[in-house]
Amino acid sequence: MERLIRLSIEYDGSCYVGWQIQPNGDSIQGVVEAALERIVGTPVRLHSSGRTDAGVHARGMVAHFSDKSSIPLRAFCQGVNRFLPDDIAIRNVSEAPPGFHARYSALGKWYRYSIYRGEIRSPLNGRRAWHLRQSLDLDAMRHAAAELVGRHDFSAFRSSGCNAKTSVREIYSINLCEEGDLLHIDIRGSGFLRNMVRILTGTLVEVGRNERPVGDIARLLRNGDRTCSGMTAPACGLCLMEVVYDGGEKEKNFLDTPE
Amino acid sequence: MERLIRLSIEYDGSCYVGWQIQPNGDSIQGVVEAALERIVGTPVRLHSSGRTDAGVHARGMVAHFSDKSSIPLRAFCQGVNRFLPDDIAIRNVSEAPPGFHARYSALGKWYRYSIYRGEIRSPLNGRRAWHLRQSLDLDAMRHAAAELVGRHDFSAFRSSGCNAKTSVREIYSINLCEEGDLLHIDIRGSGFLRNMVRILTGTLVEVGRNERPVGDIARLLRNGDRTCSGMTAPACGLCLMEVVYDGGEKEKNFLDTPE
Repeated sequence: MERLIRLSIEYDGSCYVGWQIQPNGDSIQGVVEAALERIVGTPVRLHSSGRTDAGVHARGMVAHFSDKSSIPLRAFCQGVNRFLPDDIAIRNVSEAPPGFHARYSALGKWYRYSIYRGEIRSPLNGRRAWHLRQSLDLDAMRHAAAELVGRHDFSAFRSSGCNAKTSVREIYSINLCEEGDLLHIDIRGSGFLRNMVRILTGTLVEVGRNERPVGDIARLLRNGDRTCSGMTAPACGLCLMEVVYDGGEKEKNFLDTPE
Repeated sequence: MERLIRLSIEYDGSCYVGWQIQPNGDSIQGVVEAALERIVGTPVRLHSSGRTDAGVHARGMVAHFSDKSSIPLRAFCQGVNRFLPDDIAIRNVSEAPPGFHARYSALGKWYRYSIYRGEIRSPLNGRRAWHLRQSLDLDAMRHAAAELVGRHDFSAFRSSGCNAKTSVREIYSINLCEEGDLLHIDIRGSGFLRNMVRILTGTLVEVGRNERPVGDIARLLRNGDRTCSGMTAPACGLCLMEVVYDGGEKEKNFLDTPE
């Protein structure tokens, strides 16, 4: 009997070339596949909800694979984690219903971009936040963020290397929340183009520094010109928080703490 | 003219042998002294408020040195940080009054010990927290903590290698506060013996697991027997948050954000 196993994976991406297997260094996918193979005994190919760039983190990356073993899921999780380095862990293992696909079944994603604001860099925050010395006009940023919410052609907010067929995506919400010296930009949407969250963040930061008027956002959404939008914010500040699926799937869910 | 310069230093101690210079690897002190020497042009010897063990972090370690240069303090800070690695930064530079000593002028210290509670380890929290799977009885821990507050002989809570002349210290307060899955134990006191915060934490955790009755604390303070107290909690969870000095010193204080 073959079953589909769905994993939720947390990682600090600082030391990796990104999610996807690449010839130039360790990838999250490669390291997790190798650990899974030691448990399952056969080659494993993971299918993820998407990729994350080099240096990007995840609290809840989702990936699935088909498995012929009959290892109980709880033992599975504990066993694989024993073969993973400290900066990667399987946080949840469940059996997915037939037809589930980590990428195609996803209804949306939540990304968080974190900014550390202070004159001097902070070693305790630096690994997971973009350090900005200038103060930011949060009101202006919130107005600009509101312009981005909705279904738009995000051509101006994808990297030149992006080869998605369509550049239309829907942003459900963008929330800015402060936590001490940290500013979190929480972006929820149907899906994201390559580097989209980082370019959106870079553009919002330019608005926050009053280097770009709020009205620019509508123009960028209309003209779709990447050369007119903001810089790509550094990878270290980005974290894939959650991938959302239909809650009606009634998977056997393990290891989630009840709340 | 010679002046005393006081530094506040933040670091992620994961990759270091501790504060103090040692032959077996990079120390925070050694790395900071080397960076200072590149700015000042002469050898620098730092005097710190104390030591931190290998793997322990600091938000506000304080150290001083005497300096004959006339470099403006702000330039000093920026310059030295350029020669420091990402996991260490000078967060504050000020001129201290004559007679100031980072260790002997200190009135107290605030340490934070962080525990990550969850069945599965968390890569995004693991670098700076002790991972515990078992649930903890926080009420019992708070009762035990209250027994520790005050002026006591803490012989039972220092490592065998500790050679402080007296083992009497005063703990001003111990507060347990929850932040999501993290539990922070904030300990403020006049000073601390070697490994004292980590042994206090290990002992409180045994109370929290109901492996040790609350009444044990009074017994440990009386008998002073290290073999009867709890385990030494791992270094990664510990952070020196602040060293407190007399606020009346009227130092020239730079780079602190006004609040």
